[in-house]
Amino acid sequence: MRIAIDAMGGDHAPGLIVQGALEAAKEWPDVQLVLVGDKTAIEPLLKEGLPSNVTLHHADEVIGADDEPVRAVRRKKGSSMVIAGQLVKDKQVDAMLSAGNTGALMTTGLLVVGRMEGIERPALAPILPTMGSGGVLSLDMGANMDAKPEHLLQYAIMGSIYRAKVHGVQNPRVGLLNVGSEAKKGNELTKAAYELLENAPIQFVGNVESRDVFDGKCDVLVCDGFAGNILLKAMEGTAGAIFSTLKEAFGSSLLTKLAAAIMLPKLKTLKQKLDYKEHGGAPLLGLNGLVIKCHGSSDAYAVKNAVRQARIALQANLTESISAEINRK
Amino acid sequence: MRIAIDAMGGDHAPGLIVQGALEAAKEWPDVQLVLVGDKTAIEPLLKEGLPSNVTLHHADEVIGADDEPVRAVRRKKGSSMVIAGQLVKDKQVDAMLSAGNTGALMTTGLLVVGRMEGIERPALAPILPTMGSGGVLSLDMGANMDAKPEHLLQYAIMGSIYRAKVHGVQNPRVGLLNVGSEAKKGNELTKAAYELLENAPIQFVGNVESRDVFDGKCDVLVCDGFAGNILLKAMEGTAGAIFSTLKEAFGSSLLTKLAAAIMLPKLKTLKQKLDYKEHGGAPLLGLNGLVIKCHGSSDAYAVKNAVRQARIALQANLTESISAEINRK
Repeated sequence: MRIAIDAMGGDHAPGLIVQGALEAAKEWPDVQLVLVGDKTAIEPLLKEGLPSNVTLHHADEVIGADDEPVRAVRRKKGSSMVIAGQLVKDKQVDAMLSAGNTGALMTTGLLVVGRMEGIERPALAPILPTMGSGGVLSLDMGANMDAKPEHLLQYAIMGSIYRAKVHGVQNPRVGLLNVGSEAKKGNELTKAAYELLENAPIQFVGNVESRDVFDGKCDVLVCDGFAGNILLKAMEGTAGAIFSTLKEAFGSSLLTKLAAAIMLPKLKTLKQKLDYKEHGGAPLLGLNGLVIKCHGSSDAYAVKNAVRQARIALQANLTESISAEINRK
Repeated sequence: MRIAIDAMGGDHAPGLIVQGALEAAKEWPDVQLVLVGDKTAIEPLLKEGLPSNVTLHHADEVIGADDEPVRAVRRKKGSSMVIAGQLVKDKQVDAMLSAGNTGALMTTGLLVVGRMEGIERPALAPILPTMGSGGVLSLDMGANMDAKPEHLLQYAIMGSIYRAKVHGVQNPRVGLLNVGSEAKKGNELTKAAYELLENAPIQFVGNVESRDVFDGKCDVLVCDGFAGNILLKAMEGTAGAIFSTLKEAFGSSLLTKLAAAIMLPKLKTLKQKLDYKEHGGAPLLGLNGLVIKCHGSSDAYAVKNAVRQARIALQANLTESISAEINRK
């Protein structure tokens, strides 16, 4: 299996991206990696030369974090991200990873890689943290702002297959993000989606309120990209506000500094648990090939982990399985 | 000014509701209070008899926390909540308060009190906490699930007037809840609302992401009721999950219990700060009279505070000011 890595995307590109790729290549000799990026920047990082299962594909341009996504993808045809997408499109690789500009990667997925037949809207599906260990695969977290009930149905099917194939969750429980737990609650979108989900080939467990997401009531959470973004960033903002206030409180006197010293390891664990960035790359589901968004702050470990994730998905024929289910009806 | 109080609504009704009303009556002799509820339950609470500025209006029925809102309001015409609403409708009082069933109160507002002329959808407007002291008046937090851009414009105007008249905020900053800070971001609703807000007679400060709500970037936050509910409950759920994990961590050994003892006062302050229930009653704006939703867990202090809030709003001619602005265009 062949995986392209956008070596130029992310806060630590190309250094830690290339390092992660080399570590992954060593760990999984059955994987062929293609590093896409500026060879003058990458070659100096390859002190021991290229391993036999890694190739370098030169790209002149880079899409930056502040580039306007659609414009950047249209104009920067020679960028590492767009070229990696083109390699997926041309079936020269089976998957691509990038820690670059999220909007641009979603656009690359849509305009370069292309939608899977039968899918109307691809969805971004990160794992949100739960207080238990499993997390919840949540989609759509921002690829598509105005969803229709049928899109939510497709998200549910894709998320369910991903969770089963990649995470080994048997018969994943699918919840619908909503304003109340009762069946009749919601806006027009969720009320219509509820009926579709009840009749879908998934284990639908009903509505889930945003305050209950942490409880792990479902393995897959379905919502439109607008609501998903509000949810994700509200969780992030609340946790951030609490931790910064705690930090201040712990630093206010000698005694509280003592308390801080005692609590530090536990607080660190909690902070990591709550950080959705810790939970691996987010697949962009519904495309003609596998695209994984790694967080912008990804280090070598995160990149290696994303390769592991892509490898499992490819071994399990994820894309083909989704396509078969979507086009079965 | 005359204010009706639903004496039977809330977790601590009628005991603490009546107690709060009596304290308010004592503090503000210029207010006439009407206690609406079952006289056999209320009379034993009036050990010193009724103060001269309090009257008792008997109501046979009660709408419970689990009653289906629309059905309850339609069928229980003799309930304390519906009768209080009817008193507002008939101009026998200027305002009403209730700590009862939120859905039923919104329905009472719509079906009994009635919409203000020119207003398409009333909105529920609680104060969400911010890390600074002011909080942010946020609307709509659940009265209306499917909003149009024009509704968001009306929310902005109503919220702005409320914040100025009741909280004394000069020229309140109004933000639009959205998925990014740039002007072109959002779904169809927020993109269209953005243009309307730019041209409205308010101080529009642009889009606000859910992760930035705590920062106090605006005094009024506008959104549709679905997104508002997702935001509110995500903040609540995240804070709850963090505090319960902290509690566990603090209880895990003798040393951490020591740390807990040191930190307890600060943690309590933080918890209160984050609790939107601490921030007074939430007005239901856009009705033919003032309706204030007190939190279900309201005690005497909260009820007294809600009377204070209603008194300020009535003194400032809130409803008339909103009506004048809405119908000016």
